[in-house]
Amino acid sequence: MASKLVAIIAGVGPGTGASVARKFAKTYPVVLLARKPENFESLADEINKNGGKAIGISTDVSSKDSLASALSAIEKEFGTNVGAAAAIFNASGGFLRKPFLEIDPSVFEQSLNVSALGGIVFSQAFLPLLLKAKEQGSEHPPTLIFTGATASVKSSAQLASFSTGKWALRALSQSLAKEFGPQGIHVSHAIIDGVIDIPRTKEWLKDLGPEAKLSSDGIANDYWYLHTQPATNFTWELDTRPAVEKW
Amino acid sequence: MASKLVAIIAGVGPGTGASVARKFAKTYPVVLLARKPENFESLADEINKNGGKAIGISTDVSSKDSLASALSAIEKEFGTNVGAAAAIFNASGGFLRKPFLEIDPSVFEQSLNVSALGGIVFSQAFLPLLLKAKEQGSEHPPTLIFTGATASVKSSAQLASFSTGKWALRALSQSLAKEFGPQGIHVSHAIIDGVIDIPRTKEWLKDLGPEAKLSSDGIANDYWYLHTQPATNFTWELDTRPAVEKW
Amino acid sequence: MASKLVAIIAGVGPGTGASVARKFAKTYPVVLLARKPENFESLADEINKNGGKAIGISTDVSSKDSLASALSAIEKEFGTNVGAAAAIFNASGGFLRKPFLEIDPSVFEQSLNVSALGGIVFSQAFLPLLLKAKEQGSEHPPTLIFTGATASVKSSAQLASFSTGKWALRALSQSLAKEFGPQGIHVSHAIIDGVIDIPRTKEWLKDLGPEAKLSSDGIANDYWYLHTQPATNFTWELDTRPAVEKW
Amino acid sequence: MASKLVAIIAGVGPGTGASVARKFAKTYPVVLLARKPENFESLADEINKNGGKAIGISTDVSSKDSLASALSAIEKEFGTNVGAAAAIFNASGGFLRKPFLEIDPSVFEQSLNVSALGGIVFSQAFLPLLLKAKEQGSEHPPTLIFTGATASVKSSAQLASFSTGKWALRALSQSLAKEFGPQGIHVSHAIIDGVIDIPRTKEWLKDLGPEAKLSSDGIANDYWYLHTQPATNFTWELDTRPAVEKW
Repeated sequence: MASKLVAIIAGVGPGTGASVARKFAKTYPVVLLARKPENFESLADEINKNGGKAIGISTDVSSKDSLASALSAIEKEFGTNVGAAAAIFNASGGFLRKPFLEIDPSVFEQSLNVSALGGIVFSQAFLPLLLKAKEQGSEHPPTLIFTGATASVKSSAQLASFSTGKWALRALSQSLAKEFGPQGIHVSHAIIDGVIDIPRTKEWLKDLGPEAKLSSDGIANDYWYLHTQPATNFTWELDTRPAVEKW
Repeated sequence: MASKLVAIIAGVGPGTGASVARKFAKTYPVVLLARKPENFESLADEINKNGGKAIGISTDVSSKDSLASALSAIEKEFGTNVGAAAAIFNASGGFLRKPFLEIDPSVFEQSLNVSALGGIVFSQAFLPLLLKAKEQGSEHPPTLIFTGATASVKSSAQLASFSTGKWALRALSQSLAKEFGPQGIHVSHAIIDGVIDIPRTKEWLKDLGPEAKLSSDGIANDYWYLHTQPATNFTWELDTRPAVEKW
Repeated sequence: MASKLVAIIAGVGPGTGASVARKFAKTYPVVLLARKPENFESLADEINKNGGKAIGISTDVSSKDSLASALSAIEKEFGTNVGAAAAIFNASGGFLRKPFLEIDPSVFEQSLNVSALGGIVFSQAFLPLLLKAKEQGSEHPPTLIFTGATASVKSSAQLASFSTGKWALRALSQSLAKEFGPQGIHVSHAIIDGVIDIPRTKEWLKDLGPEAKLSSDGIANDYWYLHTQPATNFTWELDTRPAVEKW
Repeated sequence: MASKLVAIIAGVGPGTGASVARKFAKTYPVVLLARKPENFESLADEINKNGGKAIGISTDVSSKDSLASALSAIEKEFGTNVGAAAAIFNASGGFLRKPFLEIDPSVFEQSLNVSALGGIVFSQAFLPLLLKAKEQGSEHPPTLIFTGATASVKSSAQLASFSTGKWALRALSQSLAKEFGPQGIHVSHAIIDGVIDIPRTKEWLKDLGPEAKLSSDGIANDYWYLHTQPATNFTWELDTRPAVEKW
């Protein structure tokens, strides 16, 4: 029996996650994971309507159990020999700039739970499906991509609740790249440095011109490009920012 | 009423923590935090016998409540206007090299709890005492030091359970250095790269000669040196390793 | 009068340079710069024979005067309003592993001259052509790419004669990315980490399997991908290595 | 015949170089290298008057021949079995912020010559003296220190003429640390991040308070501290900046 390869995307909001889903849906059935159904429902509808295939699964990506349920749902839909051509971790703890001593420890805990532990349990849940895709001879090397940020490499004042999780996630991605690269899995980390152009940021940076914000479709192109790199040429990390961005 | 400045050291085992405690005890009363009393009892005895002053407090450094209890014990002993000349976070999640898919998520959680969240709640508990020491005109700028490792800047295969916490801790230290430097608090991060010479490592690296392992007293000297730097010359980070170490 | 956009490639040997030239020649006339004609002659012939357009110019890329001559030759061939869609600096000082005290200073000088000063004068010679392409409304943002190596970010023992030039080149690329990004020029640096699969390395790493060496065509794809990124999503740096590479 | 150990300092201006010379002169005869005698004359006089021993040698640190002359002068003064307890490279190409296309290549060349090639030929000239000190059983491990800057790790727009040399110098220091550490030589790189408090900068940053500028004596203390680290605990790199510095 022929198997199906899917692409799994965790953290689908209006920006990167949705663009990545649309991009990968041109080739693979996509699985959309988000806590709240309203974050994936209309996107799944849109993809299904446009000739793609998408299912959304309400999932807490920081919970091993919730991810196990998601996996069951995926296997129910696509069969137990389903493999993953790509797994993309785009979830993140909340961005908060606040004096350190005024932040409740639960905020840090939450950030570490989503950005760091989330990345870990997501990887543990779906690396087996990526390895399965490799065994099944996927066209492109199965790819595990993590979305990073400026705060993944630079830890600003008052931003520790965000950066601690992001640095941990980057550490995870580097370790996994070294462990699973030799097994044929392509692990990447993208440093997204700038404001993404979504409805919520419509009014931001207007004085810097129409190209001051990152295109989420551009990020999706980057992720797809990473996915298509051959095993002889794996990129672990790239940074991306608008041309006019100060850095 | 004259106040007392203390040095607080979390994570006192046989190596770095004990050496740091002895070094700082030459100038300040020291507070030794460790979960198990056997980790600080003989050290406290030794310091008290040698003319210093030390108290040990059984503390879970990843727990806000446990740190609050420790703070109460410190204030009971040294008065409520006690300030901290130094707070040193030397605790760490366990070092484990193991295939990623064979590691239970609880191991990652534990590592993030101690290395990352521990550093956070430790800093939240004792930064107020460091700021108090600054107000009270401490001789040296109050100093918050975090112990890092090679795995703080490099994330090797099969080592993610250790490195994720260590990268998060480094992010914390950089953010705090930027936020609290301008408030007169010196925040540092030391990358300890190599094997520390303690009884447990006695037989290690013997073929590389007597200087192949880090001296924990040397590390304590580094920490003391950082502590004595003036506000015009704060070092955030230094690395340290044996001369013969490959890197 | 309509202008022509060309792609200029410095350092065309049997590996990366040739693959990049072939790739960009599918879209642009290419200008091949190398000191020795035998390094570009057969490649130019091949491209011209296959329907592309290529000219080779014997050039010392570390010499301002030699680059000025190259520019004259380009303008003579393509007109004085010629713009550059891409300029790719793939030249490098020689790789040498040798005890530091046994290396003649002229070796360091030569390496700095090619890798560092070469990158500088190459950029000064051709950034005006990239800016001209931008003015002329090139389809893709004009792109300046530098080829880096593992030694661009890590400086090993006995390798200083190579790494000093490579670090300097990386510094150049970062500064130029920040200065010329806002002017619409895409400046990138690629860390090529591993052995490239060329005739000279045919017998290397054979025990690691057929995918142990970097494909130079893969690198050319990366460079082309960078070239096609829109101004909202510029990647400054990416690393690339074989899946099985240890790092 | 007993040998003398000296400390050699290249680049003695009014700031770091002079402070370092005074500091090391408390223990060792110091050799002051600068192109212009007016940069070392009064400093040498001051040290000699205060009970230390200093000689100044007019030297172009980017010239192998000039350094060979300096070495002859040192051996003439201190004997041919003279060893160096420390060699400190504090010279630097000029700091220039200017649009890239307006900088004459000779400026880059000059910067690379002093910062990069200078560091190389300085190291080749005096590493043999450091190794001699090691053989002779110096009290502290012989130490080779390079002065870096913010621009050693960050390459800003319009600053490439300065940063290219500084990155190359940092690469040199890392390679030498790895090669000569195992031979007992301590090689360090100090990232000096901020304005140094010297007569020329008297009016700078006044609104940030009296501690907004680096103390050159503080830097000298750092260098001395590095010098006194034992072979079990070598620091390659530290950064240092005023507490109030933004970074």
